[in-house]
Amino acid sequence: MNVPEIIERKRDGQENSPEELEALVRGVLQESIPDYQISAWLMAVLFRGMSLRETAALTKIMMHSGDVLDLGQLPGVKVDKHSTGGVGDKITIPLAPAAAACGAVIPMISGRALGHTGGTLDKLESIPGLRTDLEIPAFLRIVKEAGFAIAAAGSDLAPADAKLYQLRDVTGTVPSIPLITASILSKKYAAGVESLVLDVKSGSGAFLREPEDAQCLAQTLTSVSREMGKKARAYITSMDQPLGVAVGNALEIRESMAVLEGRGPADVAQLVEILGSALLELAGIETDSESARGKIRAAIASGQARERFLIWVAAQGGDPRVLEKEDGLARAPILREARASRTGKIAAIDVREIGYAANELGAGRRKMGDRIDPAVGFKMRVRLSDAVRAGDVLAEIHARSEDDAALAAKRIANAFRIEDDADPAPPLVLEML
Amino acid sequence: MNVPEIIERKRDGQENSPEELEALVRGVLQESIPDYQISAWLMAVLFRGMSLRETAALTKIMMHSGDVLDLGQLPGVKVDKHSTGGVGDKITIPLAPAAAACGAVIPMISGRALGHTGGTLDKLESIPGLRTDLEIPAFLRIVKEAGFAIAAAGSDLAPADAKLYQLRDVTGTVPSIPLITASILSKKYAAGVESLVLDVKSGSGAFLREPEDAQCLAQTLTSVSREMGKKARAYITSMDQPLGVAVGNALEIRESMAVLEGRGPADVAQLVEILGSALLELAGIETDSESARGKIRAAIASGQARERFLIWVAAQGGDPRVLEKEDGLARAPILREARASRTGKIAAIDVREIGYAANELGAGRRKMGDRIDPAVGFKMRVRLSDAVRAGDVLAEIHARSEDDAALAAKRIANAFRIEDDADPAPPLVLEML
Repeated sequence: MNVPEIIERKRDGQENSPEELEALVRGVLQESIPDYQISAWLMAVLFRGMSLRETAALTKIMMHSGDVLDLGQLPGVKVDKHSTGGVGDKITIPLAPAAAACGAVIPMISGRALGHTGGTLDKLESIPGLRTDLEIPAFLRIVKEAGFAIAAAGSDLAPADAKLYQLRDVTGTVPSIPLITASILSKKYAAGVESLVLDVKSGSGAFLREPEDAQCLAQTLTSVSREMGKKARAYITSMDQPLGVAVGNALEIRESMAVLEGRGPADVAQLVEILGSALLELAGIETDSESARGKIRAAIASGQARERFLIWVAAQGGDPRVLEKEDGLARAPILREARASRTGKIAAIDVREIGYAANELGAGRRKMGDRIDPAVGFKMRVRLSDAVRAGDVLAEIHARSEDDAALAAKRIANAFRIEDDADPAPPLVLEML
Repeated sequence: MNVPEIIERKRDGQENSPEELEALVRGVLQESIPDYQISAWLMAVLFRGMSLRETAALTKIMMHSGDVLDLGQLPGVKVDKHSTGGVGDKITIPLAPAAAACGAVIPMISGRALGHTGGTLDKLESIPGLRTDLEIPAFLRIVKEAGFAIAAAGSDLAPADAKLYQLRDVTGTVPSIPLITASILSKKYAAGVESLVLDVKSGSGAFLREPEDAQCLAQTLTSVSREMGKKARAYITSMDQPLGVAVGNALEIRESMAVLEGRGPADVAQLVEILGSALLELAGIETDSESARGKIRAAIASGQARERFLIWVAAQGGDPRVLEKEDGLARAPILREARASRTGKIAAIDVREIGYAANELGAGRRKMGDRIDPAVGFKMRVRLSDAVRAGDVLAEIHARSEDDAALAAKRIANAFRIEDDADPAPPLVLEML
């Protein structure tokens, strides 16, 4: 297989054959094709795109690049949820126990902070003792015990994706719809999931900012899933403001506990209900979405979802007592405020800037292997279209040092556009596919 | 300097600043930026292009990535010629001694076979003993002695180009106008050249096949040269058929000798005159092109150009006696013919196929470091719009083995499109800029 020819075919707008894609993926895994050829091909894919047929072929090849779990020993339809990444997106954390409390079986493979976005695994690891690097037998045992488990994709599941992802992250080749699709679906389906709920973000805090890109990604994800014999449903949701109030790892765990206790922010609670009901429908536990939403609401109101979460925390090595009293989670020493520079209404929020500002405080990584500070982050005090007066607090800053806090306060204040008047905020769910 | 951001800026269609380009080139040289980031950036440049300002900045940075020769000790204006590469393009070989015999000073940095095209250095090295890897003092001494020297770019001249070129060759990033421009001009101007004649190929055997691409490349080369304070003139010439009759290393040396003896193919002789007269004009030796062409013609007719060539061959270590009698040049053991499959006129020639067929015989390289067989190649017997009968010889094949010859005969025959009628061949020189 002549690698330059494979690159040139994609560069010139032609399709790569399944054999060519197979050769590339094998070359990545065996390190027989140098990274510089792979990254040139990735950039050509970013510009030229891929047909649905090519995307499905690439996804299957990546899915089969390692083990494919057989979850036949678990009862029921195995479901999972995936978000394309946003700021303040802690939905998975209350969602998984709520849906599991309703009978869903959720073997969840999750990710880490990336770019301006937070990562579920990083958030969970702010619970002392909690481990997400599970071996497959432990992973299965915990799914059986708690109804769900949340783990990092080990080196056995879709290993080609891990390598390609590392390369994409540093070569400007992340925002490509076929590459995103193959990356998400190969991991999820290698983990044995049969049905998938997809939360595709749109807006200033999404990786793909254009509404038509979000739609195309949602369409590609559901079409390729169908092509692979899986059930999938996609929601396009607004990332024009952070989800909920908390941004930052331990802060988001606290907010997740609040949601599980029925006192969380309305948008987070609403999305947990919507995506949770979709999980129950895809799992065949409920047939209409109204009763499914009622079931999720009841699981939270009754405390069963919260209880399920604490059982799971213990199963993955965490100490549930720190969550009972909240004292055991890290707290930042410095608390400061970002304030409005003028009177008016919140017309727009640069959510990406907020994510990067959180990174700068230590909530994310600047380069591979950086340690995350679980304590730092923000609590947003205003939402889109809210009226503010000059000097009002826009966000509370939780920082490690005064210098960090001062920098973040400036950056956060600049991320808000305040005007005399503002359009109403977009709805949380923009579309369902 | 954040490399992913530099890549992303180019990916998103913005300009890279001179500081960013400087950081990339330094990173290439010092190997502090991994090749996989460079190749992703190269592919983004291929898709997005570069402004004239960016191209000029990149060229200057690459030119200054190593030594810049000061040729002040040589008399007169230092001129050079560069061709963007074709099949059968041996123009440099008779051109340099002819122009030098007319008083031009030509410190020539030349290249090797690439893709489907031949390389002047490879052709010259079929002269026993001739060396092209000159140290700078020897290079200068030979320019003084013979009026010209032809050498490979040493590791001291534009070393960034050598590294980028190797990477482009295997990552599908060769056909990019700004990258081609920076590569050509950085080497030439680092060698101390003040004026440059450019032969930009257009047609089925050119790297850039579209006529508008050739025009854009010619424009970019001349504009960037002006921007750098150099004089340049570009000719767009037809590569819809091989230049001359011979394709292959020793075969092209024989043809070059024929041109220097006034008995070469008309198209080669014509292009030597045109490009040679441009060299004399740019060097300030002649002011009008008619008298400049007359001077080149006279240098050949008088035998001075031939004599100058033999002096130069000896100066670079070659044995001029083998050229006097032609016996010392390699000869292939097998001679076969490619024949016309039908009666008609030569409507088109896939020149790239002819180049690749020559490579397959051994005239070029399949991968870095391959040895070249100087003896093998083709002699073309027909030209565009010629009438042929079925069974007529299209080309004579000089091969190392019967098997090679049989394969080449088939490939060559297929590279000719014979139809009932054919348009007249395009003129040799399509445009001057």
